[in-house]
Amino acid sequence: VHKQNLAELQRKLDQLHPADVAYILEALPLDERLLVWDLVKAERDGEILLEVSDSVRESLIQTMDKAELLAAAESLDTDEIADIAADLPRDVIEELLTTLDAQKRALLQSALAYPEDTVGALMDFEMVTIRADVTLEVALRYLRRLGELPDQLDKLFVVDRDERLIGVLPLKRLLTTDPEASVAAVMVEDVVQFHPEDEAQEAAQAFERYDLVMAPVVDAVGRLIGRLTIDAVVDYIRESADADMLSMAGLKEEEDLFSTVWRAAKNRWMWLAINLATAFVASRVIGAFEGSIEKLAALAALMPIIAGIGGNSGNQTITLIIRGLALGHITPSNARRLVLKEIGVALLNGLVWGSAVGVFAWLLYDNPALGGVMALAMLLNLLVAALAGIFIPMTLERVKRDPAIGSSVLLTFVTDSMGFFIFLGLATLLLL
Amino acid sequence: VHKQNLAELQRKLDQLHPADVAYILEALPLDERLLVWDLVKAERDGEILLEVSDSVRESLIQTMDKAELLAAAESLDTDEIADIAADLPRDVIEELLTTLDAQKRALLQSALAYPEDTVGALMDFEMVTIRADVTLEVALRYLRRLGELPDQLDKLFVVDRDERLIGVLPLKRLLTTDPEASVAAVMVEDVVQFHPEDEAQEAAQAFERYDLVMAPVVDAVGRLIGRLTIDAVVDYIRESADADMLSMAGLKEEEDLFSTVWRAAKNRWMWLAINLATAFVASRVIGAFEGSIEKLAALAALMPIIAGIGGNSGNQTITLIIRGLALGHITPSNARRLVLKEIGVALLNGLVWGSAVGVFAWLLYDNPALGGVMALAMLLNLLVAALAGIFIPMTLERVKRDPAIGSSVLLTFVTDSMGFFIFLGLATLLLL
Repeated sequence: VHKQNLAELQRKLDQLHPADVAYILEALPLDERLLVWDLVKAERDGEILLEVSDSVRESLIQTMDKAELLAAAESLDTDEIADIAADLPRDVIEELLTTLDAQKRALLQSALAYPEDTVGALMDFEMVTIRADVTLEVALRYLRRLGELPDQLDKLFVVDRDERLIGVLPLKRLLTTDPEASVAAVMVEDVVQFHPEDEAQEAAQAFERYDLVMAPVVDAVGRLIGRLTIDAVVDYIRESADADMLSMAGLKEEEDLFSTVWRAAKNRWMWLAINLATAFVASRVIGAFEGSIEKLAALAALMPIIAGIGGNSGNQTITLIIRGLALGHITPSNARRLVLKEIGVALLNGLVWGSAVGVFAWLLYDNPALGGVMALAMLLNLLVAALAGIFIPMTLERVKRDPAIGSSVLLTFVTDSMGFFIFLGLATLLLL
Repeated sequence: VHKQNLAELQRKLDQLHPADVAYILEALPLDERLLVWDLVKAERDGEILLEVSDSVRESLIQTMDKAELLAAAESLDTDEIADIAADLPRDVIEELLTTLDAQKRALLQSALAYPEDTVGALMDFEMVTIRADVTLEVALRYLRRLGELPDQLDKLFVVDRDERLIGVLPLKRLLTTDPEASVAAVMVEDVVQFHPEDEAQEAAQAFERYDLVMAPVVDAVGRLIGRLTIDAVVDYIRESADADMLSMAGLKEEEDLFSTVWRAAKNRWMWLAINLATAFVASRVIGAFEGSIEKLAALAALMPIIAGIGGNSGNQTITLIIRGLALGHITPSNARRLVLKEIGVALLNGLVWGSAVGVFAWLLYDNPALGGVMALAMLLNLLVAALAGIFIPMTLERVKRDPAIGSSVLLTFVTDSMGFFIFLGLATLLLL
């Protein structure tokens, strides 16, 4: 009966779109995942490996031998092989390069050479090119002879005899214009195009801004070398939004939900260690005031409020700045205004919330001076938070680092340490 | 000279794509933004309003009178009017409804009726439909007669005489198949389609998964009522990723980088107030142990470490869970395994980092018992963090609330309060 169930499951898997099989594999714990993976037809391995996340792909590839991996890779297009190459064992890649024909080998090697997060790493090579001097009628006949067109194809690329891009012919125009017209007369010459070394981030913004479905990729002298399609861009947008979210939360990389405890722990250690180091420093700031705390234990109870609200308020600022930097809305010329605005918000919040916590401390401990110190410390720490919230991401950006990674940890470090220092320092000076 | 510069600027603006003008408006402080807005040709107002963010749109609409707003809205398609309707004054919408013809009015009213974040709110009405009983030759002639096709059109919708969708004819097939064939013979019948009340989130996942460019939207009886295109889906993906990021950082809504201090402060107050309330509670937990802290001030210096690492570790867990829920990878049947894995990670981290901080406290204060309490408290708080990191977002999801909003605040509340309670409680029991 068990065998019958498996046969039934296998039959169902065969009918599913590779992306749906990938989805099922993602949601299964490791042992069940490998069971299902065994049931997938070998010839579909390649397209499914392409759809799963990096961490799940790793878990699947570990169970495959060299012959299986080679067969899977050979079922893919060159640009698709490049997409999963990072997870393939070195010897499989090498063997693969020897089995490909010269043209494909060159394509694969150039695709592998482009760094992640560039247009070159996202592009594919499935284009249809025509010459400018033919009529639309000829173009239509040519397409019919091809028999099949690539997915996401919404335009033909018009090239000269040196393969240089001179325009594009949108299928829309091809379908609605008199077939007697020449390609040259109908093509669009002003084309959004990319170079393989362009940042993927900028290409994604162009796709969003101009509602593109597909765009040509050309080399330095304008020769057509590939195309970028909206599905690759959407995957990139999703993955980079995910990566930002994960790294802001202190995860080194995408983590398989069902990875082993050991792998999961390792993925989280780097940021936990950094956090621990900054917490130690903040702890030593408090340690310097232990004498004051012994005399007035209320300080210990109140100090996390100052540090915490500073952290929260600073995180609001930092998030807006990171987003503004990512969208390109922040420039050196408007940065001064931003600083003034954030200082304004910090002053306003400092007066409002500072008064609130001041009154709270005063009433709770029947000590108006303690309330005053509390209010003043809150105001000052909110100013610190605003400035740190602006300058930390902007400095990371200036030194060419991703402002989304680590700035939140740095900020909390500043608002914690400074919050403790300001509050305990003021209390020691003014109350004791 | 100033006048000449303005004329020059105006000429440049006229040549830019509306999305590029929108981008410039986003990056300008309010006074300069309004200056540029005045220079934009009135007939382009509509398409530019469509491209800017909600907060910037609000700032622009405030400067426009009723006639200008009506003219801008009338230059847009019905589904586009619906997109900006939320920001238009009530009387403009009402006047608009009276000026539209009956068919457009019905479309606008139905588009306005769909809640945000549904397919209905994202769809447009620019479709090309054909009948199944004609030949491709007839279809090609029909397209040529139309003269112009909508953007992002990669297929024609095949409908019966009751406007029910019976298939789609991809342009790819239309271009590569013998024109003598009938639409019925060539069309694809197994089509990914949506209902207007479907969640936009799920439609976006389908677009990503199946690499769609465009899909039909049908009503309950299968009648074609609109289409969903990849550009609307990409905008939705970007906006909801942004909204998640902003709300996780405690911002109520998208904030114009250059909004006034007052508006910015109001946007941030809700979450600051909630944070303040939770910080008060955590402060009272510490307050309950003031006697212990007076006797051993080292407790005050060490307690933020326990609370802080708990918060960080819990945030790692919560981020993975929120992501798993959003992608649909977490189901009731695999939740138990997730809990076991996270408990495993917490135990491992508790042993490793607990020992580290225990040794640190022991050496620093020359007090082995204090080190032991520190290690034990760390282990326990990491367990609390793991459980809170799983159950908070899963509970929010179960009660149909967005787990991305507020779960981080709730988590920090739990790890702070419990961290202080566990550490100070253990210290009071075991050390004093």
